[in-house]
Amino acid sequence: MRIAVDAMGGDFAPESPVDGAIQAARVARGRYEIILVGDENLIRREIAKYSIKNLPIQIYHASEVIGMEESPTHALRSKKDSSIVVSSQLLKKDLADAVVSAGNTGAFMASSLLTLGRLPKVNRPGLGSFIPTEKGLCVLIDVGANSDCKPLNLLQFAVMGSVYVEHIFDISRPKVGLLNIGEEESKGNELVRESHKLLKESTLNFIGNVEGRDIFGGLAEVVVCDGFVGNIVLKFAESVVGMFTRTLKKNVGHNIPANVGALLMKPAFRKLKKIMDYQEYGGVPLLGLNKVCVVSHGRSSPKAIRNAIREARKMMEQDLNHKLMLEIARNQGA
Amino acid sequence: MRIAVDAMGGDFAPESPVDGAIQAARVARGRYEIILVGDENLIRREIAKYSIKNLPIQIYHASEVIGMEESPTHALRSKKDSSIVVSSQLLKKDLADAVVSAGNTGAFMASSLLTLGRLPKVNRPGLGSFIPTEKGLCVLIDVGANSDCKPLNLLQFAVMGSVYVEHIFDISRPKVGLLNIGEEESKGNELVRESHKLLKESTLNFIGNVEGRDIFGGLAEVVVCDGFVGNIVLKFAESVVGMFTRTLKKNVGHNIPANVGALLMKPAFRKLKKIMDYQEYGGVPLLGLNKVCVVSHGRSSPKAIRNAIREARKMMEQDLNHKLMLEIARNQGA
Repeated sequence: MRIAVDAMGGDFAPESPVDGAIQAARVARGRYEIILVGDENLIRREIAKYSIKNLPIQIYHASEVIGMEESPTHALRSKKDSSIVVSSQLLKKDLADAVVSAGNTGAFMASSLLTLGRLPKVNRPGLGSFIPTEKGLCVLIDVGANSDCKPLNLLQFAVMGSVYVEHIFDISRPKVGLLNIGEEESKGNELVRESHKLLKESTLNFIGNVEGRDIFGGLAEVVVCDGFVGNIVLKFAESVVGMFTRTLKKNVGHNIPANVGALLMKPAFRKLKKIMDYQEYGGVPLLGLNKVCVVSHGRSSPKAIRNAIREARKMMEQDLNHKLMLEIARNQGA
Repeated sequence: MRIAVDAMGGDFAPESPVDGAIQAARVARGRYEIILVGDENLIRREIAKYSIKNLPIQIYHASEVIGMEESPTHALRSKKDSSIVVSSQLLKKDLADAVVSAGNTGAFMASSLLTLGRLPKVNRPGLGSFIPTEKGLCVLIDVGANSDCKPLNLLQFAVMGSVYVEHIFDISRPKVGLLNIGEEESKGNELVRESHKLLKESTLNFIGNVEGRDIFGGLAEVVVCDGFVGNIVLKFAESVVGMFTRTLKKNVGHNIPANVGALLMKPAFRKLKKIMDYQEYGGVPLLGLNKVCVVSHGRSSPKAIRNAIREARKMMEQDLNHKLMLEIARNQGA
């Protein structure tokens, strides 16, 4: 199998993607090849820093780069030879089976959605993301691929999130919760009330509504919501550690015992930060397309890229898309 | 002016509301009277613990209590003589000007919405809530009064939140942000895209879209959203400190230096907890009704009740409802 890696994507490109890809290639053991997509000269210059003899790495040239802040729609139209667009084309032409990018998320998602086909019966692909909880991790889906959703979309996100967690996280029949503002079925807006009915009739291990507080509590392993709500919650969650540590620092101030205390607690804080650090998890899956797409954080370190590549490999080895397809069909009377 | 206090509302009723009301009565200095609403015998027994001679406190009997976990719709229908329903009736009959309750939030809101009139031109009242930020506080509105909203509702929430912050927090022309999933006007679902247009044309100090991460960042003093999104964000925010401290504790474990560190940092942690403690802020305003309604947290301490009463007083002294009415009219071409 071949995994395309956007060498120009992310705040630390091409250094970080190239480094991460080389790390991944070193442990490939014949299971996959990596195609670094981007400016050939820049990539070669970067690669020259490493010894890559016999490593399964190729380069595929793409002359343009979509900036992290560029408007996705405009960028996709004007930069046909960007590493993101070219990567999608490689997948479309079956020259690669999976793609990892830490580049402009909006552009990467739009390019994937526009270029690749959807799995049968999937109306809208969904972007899952990991949220650390007190019991481990949960997958929140959708976190931004779809701002306006219908109940059927939420059912499909739930099915895809559940299959993903089952086969990638190895959790049998993961608990699926619908993000809502109360426990009762009658709670919430029209979208979730209708979605609740579909979820109740589904094949999933649906535990009913979960509230905002239940996300960190780890009540469910899969939390389903529309992409608007999911994106707001995700970005809010990402800001939590920063707010917390900065406020704590301010309270410690110049108080000497408190500063000593902070020093002694440093390892605990570091561990906490690590738990809350989305980079640790590599990349998040865009589910429902007929190829494997892994979206990495813009600030991805080489390690994050390596983890994202590992995730893409796992998704292919598990034949995840086939399993998604079967489970979607089972839930839509086909 | 007369402030009705639901003596039976909250996890610590009647002790906490009675205690808080007495504390408030002690500093009333002729500015207001307090009407404790609830079971007269229970209230008298509670009051007997204090010396309340000459304090401006009355009791208004209500024989029933709506439990914290009861379904609001059912409870309102079946318990006509509950402290919540009776309080609303007192306001309706002009026997009181404001009400504070730490009881079943859904029932209190529904009772207020059904019994009291709305301010002219207000289509839907909005529940504001306080979120601590790195720069102070922000008011998130709506946090649960309305699950399905129209753009005009969001405009009205924004106007009411802005007037509230201006006159109760004393911040001139507070910055108003629309909770969205990106900075650009074109971002988000249909509701926020349409709301953005209305807000841009409004009299408010509208700073545009704000994202999940900007809430804690304190980018805006008023953050507007529909009640579904707001309720999820609020409950998520409320769970943050617990998750954080429990995870930190787990990381500290039996490591002795880290435990000493935690001990030395205790005052800083306590301060942080206080900043994040929603109780400190007393109650949150239900805006848009023709009376003053303050919703207190179910776990309200006497201090929280006292603060909620102070807030109700402030809202009346500022003639807030009149100001809301004027600003709503200015923004709807009347």
